[in-house]
Amino acid sequence: MNYKLVINILAKTFVISGLIMLVPIIVALIYGESIYFSFIIPSIVFLALGVPLSYIRPVEKTIYAREGFAIVALAWVFLSLIGALPYVISGEIPNYVDALFESVSGFTTTGSSVVADIESWSKSLTFWRSFTNFIGGMGVLVFFLAVIPANNQGSIYIFRAESPGPTASKFVSRMKNTAIILYAIYIGLTVILTLMLFFGGVDFFDAICQAFATAATGGFSTKNASIAAFDSVYVEIVIAVFMLLYGVNFNVFYLILIGKFKKAFCSEELRIYIIILFVATVAITVDLLIAGIQFGESLRYSFFQVTSISSTTGFSTADFGTWPSFSHGILLFLMIIGACGGSTGGGLKVSRITILFKSGATDLKKMLKPRSVHRIKFEGEPLDEDTIHNVRTYFIIWVMLFVLGTLIVATDSFGDILTDITASLTCIGNVGPGLSLIGPSLNFAAFNPLSKIVLSLLMLIGRLEIFPILLLFGVRTWKRT
Amino acid sequence: MNYKLVINILAKTFVISGLIMLVPIIVALIYGESIYFSFIIPSIVFLALGVPLSYIRPVEKTIYAREGFAIVALAWVFLSLIGALPYVISGEIPNYVDALFESVSGFTTTGSSVVADIESWSKSLTFWRSFTNFIGGMGVLVFFLAVIPANNQGSIYIFRAESPGPTASKFVSRMKNTAIILYAIYIGLTVILTLMLFFGGVDFFDAICQAFATAATGGFSTKNASIAAFDSVYVEIVIAVFMLLYGVNFNVFYLILIGKFKKAFCSEELRIYIIILFVATVAITVDLLIAGIQFGESLRYSFFQVTSISSTTGFSTADFGTWPSFSHGILLFLMIIGACGGSTGGGLKVSRITILFKSGATDLKKMLKPRSVHRIKFEGEPLDEDTIHNVRTYFIIWVMLFVLGTLIVATDSFGDILTDITASLTCIGNVGPGLSLIGPSLNFAAFNPLSKIVLSLLMLIGRLEIFPILLLFGVRTWKRT
Repeated sequence: MNYKLVINILAKTFVISGLIMLVPIIVALIYGESIYFSFIIPSIVFLALGVPLSYIRPVEKTIYAREGFAIVALAWVFLSLIGALPYVISGEIPNYVDALFESVSGFTTTGSSVVADIESWSKSLTFWRSFTNFIGGMGVLVFFLAVIPANNQGSIYIFRAESPGPTASKFVSRMKNTAIILYAIYIGLTVILTLMLFFGGVDFFDAICQAFATAATGGFSTKNASIAAFDSVYVEIVIAVFMLLYGVNFNVFYLILIGKFKKAFCSEELRIYIIILFVATVAITVDLLIAGIQFGESLRYSFFQVTSISSTTGFSTADFGTWPSFSHGILLFLMIIGACGGSTGGGLKVSRITILFKSGATDLKKMLKPRSVHRIKFEGEPLDEDTIHNVRTYFIIWVMLFVLGTLIVATDSFGDILTDITASLTCIGNVGPGLSLIGPSLNFAAFNPLSKIVLSLLMLIGRLEIFPILLLFGVRTWKRT
Repeated sequence: MNYKLVINILAKTFVISGLIMLVPIIVALIYGESIYFSFIIPSIVFLALGVPLSYIRPVEKTIYAREGFAIVALAWVFLSLIGALPYVISGEIPNYVDALFESVSGFTTTGSSVVADIESWSKSLTFWRSFTNFIGGMGVLVFFLAVIPANNQGSIYIFRAESPGPTASKFVSRMKNTAIILYAIYIGLTVILTLMLFFGGVDFFDAICQAFATAATGGFSTKNASIAAFDSVYVEIVIAVFMLLYGVNFNVFYLILIGKFKKAFCSEELRIYIIILFVATVAITVDLLIAGIQFGESLRYSFFQVTSISSTTGFSTADFGTWPSFSHGILLFLMIIGACGGSTGGGLKVSRITILFKSGATDLKKMLKPRSVHRIKFEGEPLDEDTIHNVRTYFIIWVMLFVLGTLIVATDSFGDILTDITASLTCIGNVGPGLSLIGPSLNFAAFNPLSKIVLSLLMLIGRLEIFPILLLFGVRTWKRT
């Protein structure tokens, strides 16, 4: 481990984070709220750490895998740790572990919450909570890559870890350009969504906060009843469509931007994602119809909830905890799959599931003809063995961590086993709500501190694609080089 | 597909199966029961199919992979289909789909049941139900290999498919000898267990039936309350110890038989299996203690339930459905892991889980040093890439089938999502009971026919190590060669 390099880059992210923490102060000024200190203190902590440490200059400036992983993991851990302070200082979440859970949930775009009554909060603190979703959506380090001159090729490790999906790195050749294009798409779509909500009658503050949470597929709402509170079919449809869009690989938008429409709409992952959404929407609609809900309402609830869970946003317009078991099955299935690679969504990603299926099918064929050779293709390109191996590794470790998470959370006296299973799943998949005692109308407050810390770790593991966080716990990672 | 060869060997298994179906008639004679026809009719069906078809002689006698898989899968399907007839003819399970579920559950040594009151049944039919466990435990085709002159090397495919675990084939070099040794160990242990139960005060009929179900890690009891009905600590301990033993790789017993004690007890899989059992027993004991159950009872319930679920037998001495969620988590975890490879138990097998963990750890190390080379060892031997790849494939397809099974069973209006999840898990793992509405004191009768058929398929998939059953559905499998 090249400690000086890691500290140097971390210090720079601290400075950026310190400046970001000043944004909610503008909101406080606008609304005449007096909770400046809730943001100024953490900002000072960041700057006091970041400014002096940034003078530590590394001799060797190449970022290898271990430095890349360590930088990403530590940046997110510190951002979460210090980003939790406004909740504590303002007194809205006095317990630090609870505040940390909320902070991690925000930055990882999970959206699980310990807050029972968000509507009683000040505007600036509510804004901060939604803003953590927005910051986390694209990754503070991708931002770092966009604004600071590209260090070297090694920053690919940072970029890869923060941009979800197995194929994100093939995106555009130049890292810095890629980061800027990604940010432009991300911010552009968010502006459009904010305006569409605002002109649809949503209060501007609510519009922008809801847009932040949608863009990040985070799911923190400014309302206790989530999107149901707006009681507007227009708002529901707009948000559902944007959740769907933010679950798409941003590469598709890039291709559309540069006019390559055919290539954009031929994306294999996109087609499979749309098919999954369509089938799931139909299935839940039918299930709700059978349960006695009218067709119009069934379709409306179903489409919203499918896009919300599939994109791993986690907004709700109905208490799906009361739906029949088939709907529960579909929603859990969607939580596992998640959104497309290269989107802001979580879960295993459609691309990984597709590759897993194809490699499974190939292995079955090989059972019959052991010596036959089958090349697996994805997005029209043959996949090399390493990519397939890595996707399989990712799946296996993901399942193991999910099971381990369930077991630890089950030691908590709160919740039945279904609560524990879905808590672990919704957190590692960065979704938000679960079933049983953590359904969409409930929250995570009653878990004990151990569970909250484990669930926070699962959220970070899910958001950073497993390895950076896991490797933090490895002795070898810290060996001086 | 060499159809003549497949038909010829299947016909021979039909003849054996027809003769096996006459065994319960002896029981009927002993107890003076008059339900002969329940067994004579299916016996005649088997012989009427088997005797004439066995005259179809194959030109080419080599068994390749596809023939091996097809023979195994079809033999089990026919055995289940015709083995269900006694339940229907006797009138005890008048619905054929229900009878088929019970039959598959018996032969696959799962032990899930649709029967609410087994104690009202005739002795001979109860015997048949327990006997299906016993037959299924070692596999009717391994028996076939033991009694009929070895056809050729290709029978390895049959043997592999029926003997659980990734390393079963390395057992002893000669197939026929292996089959005989396995049967000797299996029957020897069963005789000892029967006598121990009998001398412990259990009625001889109950002793032999319980021994059958234990030997196969099947779990069909002659009592509605399962092992709790005997109300004897002695019986509980004896059965728990034997469940543990039957969950051990039979290779270990073989090594003990030939005096290689050191090698036997050095088995890596055995050590990990024992550690899992020990940790799980302690964890559940503590969990029950916290829940207010006395230490003695906690330990007793815990040890019995851990060995029962871990070996995938499924007997119960307490209604673990009412236990706290941590105990539920541990039991579900044990269902996933299952017993050792080369035992009569189900689940993923300890050996596979061990290999998965080691390959995951190796991949993590490679993340830090992409060019480093790590050899994975198991049982002291380095594993080749193919074995590791196959274990990973097995896991991935297993998880996919479990999720798919859950989704289909969730379409059933019976049961909440926890019922559906645990039904799918307990069936693919060949365990027996689940949680929620299919807990140990309840049964599977209320599922609809679709769920029962899907769960039956999952049981067969689990018992035959996935591939034979899956390949039955492949078009390529049936291509004439």
